[in-house]
Amino acid sequence: MLTIDHNDTLTAARTGTLALPHGTIEVPAFMPVGTNGTVKAISHAAVDNMGYRLILGNTYHLYLRPGKEVFETYGGLHAFSSWPHNILTDSGGFQVFSLAPFRKIRDEGVRFRSHIDGSYHHLTPESVVEFQRTLGSDIMMCLDECTPPEISYKKAIEACRRTTAWAKRSKVRWDIEREAGFEGKLFGIIQGNFFKDLRKISSEEIIELDFPGIAIGGLSVGEPKETFEEYLAYTSQFLPSEKPRYLMGIGTPDYIFAAVENGIDLFDCVFATRTARNGTVFTKDGMINLKKAGHALDKGPIEEGCTCQACTRYSRGYMRHLFKAGELFGPMLATEHNLQFLYDLMVEIRHSIREDRFSSFKKNFLDRYVKKGN
Amino acid sequence: MLTIDHNDTLTAARTGTLALPHGTIEVPAFMPVGTNGTVKAISHAAVDNMGYRLILGNTYHLYLRPGKEVFETYGGLHAFSSWPHNILTDSGGFQVFSLAPFRKIRDEGVRFRSHIDGSYHHLTPESVVEFQRTLGSDIMMCLDECTPPEISYKKAIEACRRTTAWAKRSKVRWDIEREAGFEGKLFGIIQGNFFKDLRKISSEEIIELDFPGIAIGGLSVGEPKETFEEYLAYTSQFLPSEKPRYLMGIGTPDYIFAAVENGIDLFDCVFATRTARNGTVFTKDGMINLKKAGHALDKGPIEEGCTCQACTRYSRGYMRHLFKAGELFGPMLATEHNLQFLYDLMVEIRHSIREDRFSSFKKNFLDRYVKKGN
Ligand SMILES: [Zn+2]
Ligand SMILES: [Zn+2]
Repeated sequence: MLTIDHNDTLTAARTGTLALPHGTIEVPAFMPVGTNGTVKAISHAAVDNMGYRLILGNTYHLYLRPGKEVFETYGGLHAFSSWPHNILTDSGGFQVFSLAPFRKIRDEGVRFRSHIDGSYHHLTPESVVEFQRTLGSDIMMCLDECTPPEISYKKAIEACRRTTAWAKRSKVRWDIEREAGFEGKLFGIIQGNFFKDLRKISSEEIIELDFPGIAIGGLSVGEPKETFEEYLAYTSQFLPSEKPRYLMGIGTPDYIFAAVENGIDLFDCVFATRTARNGTVFTKDGMINLKKAGHALDKGPIEEGCTCQACTRYSRGYMRHLFKAGELFGPMLATEHNLQFLYDLMVEIRHSIREDRFSSFKKNFLDRYVKKGN
Repeated sequence: MLTIDHNDTLTAARTGTLALPHGTIEVPAFMPVGTNGTVKAISHAAVDNMGYRLILGNTYHLYLRPGKEVFETYGGLHAFSSWPHNILTDSGGFQVFSLAPFRKIRDEGVRFRSHIDGSYHHLTPESVVEFQRTLGSDIMMCLDECTPPEISYKKAIEACRRTTAWAKRSKVRWDIEREAGFEGKLFGIIQGNFFKDLRKISSEEIIELDFPGIAIGGLSVGEPKETFEEYLAYTSQFLPSEKPRYLMGIGTPDYIFAAVENGIDLFDCVFATRTARNGTVFTKDGMINLKKAGHALDKGPIEEGCTCQACTRYSRGYMRHLFKAGELFGPMLATEHNLQFLYDLMVEIRHSIREDRFSSFKKNFLDRYVKKGN
């Protein structure tokens, strides 16, 4: 599944290719988030044209709306949303904890109320695998229990234990789907909150189950950046190098560099697209808010040299006008730019790894990015 | 400016080409509305690719935001918004009357408060021409006084008289701009409310001023369809056949057919794009609301045979999902479809006129459109 073509000499960074049911992708790779089967404010064609070959869908959202019957009718999320490349779906666990107005966790599964219409639902490790098979996910996740920072050790143990038990049941169910011909890959998720012994135990237990890939969960959930980096490095050391590694929920340049440095192959985040809709865009000199008055008469593009539609056709002044006037074309163009920015960044990162200059590239990029940002 | 290539034998419909500073367009033509220098929820590239060569901008909105300084800096609306083809701008009069929270009309001009920030502004016939010259409009409009249905005869006379007086002053100012090399065309606007003698007087007075084109104002402002058709036919008979005729604010198939039948060459309306953002789209069988539950499992496109992105790539079921989930991609796709639908309709209308079968095409189209619509 993963073919590593180069290991960085100074860090754990590596480049390679990941063979999935809907084609091969180069890693490390950032995945745009298409929560409802659409990356917000941009067409599939535009995401495709940039070069993205793997996007994420949210199981929780898709399960609630449009629901299983629709995916059975259309033959999965690829056909329904017309995305011809790979799709990774999360387990829905994180959203049950962050979005549902009510949830009750038992060993059997989790009962919760929909944030959309208040209806009651019940998810089990088995039903989550089954739903992701209905979606036709190329990479699916085990149901896990993601916990916030600063919970008690006792609660963290409990979540860790349950995550492992659910991972075992998920794998049993996935094996049944595989025997029936399903080609999607199931990833286990490591939890353990911010307790190193639990992170170690969770890593060992999940790795033991021999999933095709491993995800690190429970990081970038509100903890300080130093804590994130410490626990990322600590957890990553346990991961088998031959398997793909997925870090959930990160997508800003500084966090991306930290992930890649620790040998992470895949990551996703809503930040790039969400912040774009608010008028904030990435540049090599840091993020800028297009709504600021200073851009009103600026004839230059968001980023000189960027090949996106926003930068090749429109000025910062025009972009500011769109946001001030509340025009949808503002979010559309800013989304396109931010996804192009991260795509291009990943191309440069992979290039720097292959040429054994990842660390210097990281330093140069972040020096400029952090220094001039506003 | 206007070259007529065919006159329908049964009606006043005609086809031709209109030579404008930014290229030639085929008429009769529908113009998408780009109020703030962007057609809402669609890129200029997509509007261009469909074949549109003339879009509308709203002087009132652009005058208030981003304002004159921006257009002076960027060298006009074409450069600012990256639209390489023609732009028609209205006079702002209609918006002053419909949007501004306060207005005071005197013969000199109109004083009003901005609906955006409450600031006070003053427009005169001269300043409106000058601002449209700053925009670089290919077709600009004289400041006029548009009145709602059911005003008194006395008020209608007054508005009619003022519209003519302002048209004269606009023309004087436009002549100065022309002598300085400006190539945009100024259209006079006929008013007269729903009084036939005033419509006749206004037509004679405006035509007398020998503008390059004539607009019919004050129709489709809330009156019954029969009244609209009666006053359209009545006013149209006075218009010189050699000049382009523009009917303001219409853009549904039934009104379009009525306009074309009366020899109208240009029309515009926000309806197609506004209703698309609400999930309602044109089909040959009438309008449909994509949010309806009946579309949930419908694998077919909005309209079989339509070449737009929505119809070639997505199902009605997926479109419904986008609208139910509040995804911006729903309005984006529906906008694209509705503009494609009207573009294709105009191609078919022009074709039917050239082949002397406009009336039967109209009948067949509207029979199906009205009969099956919901
Ligand atoms: Zn860009
Ligand atoms: Zn279509």
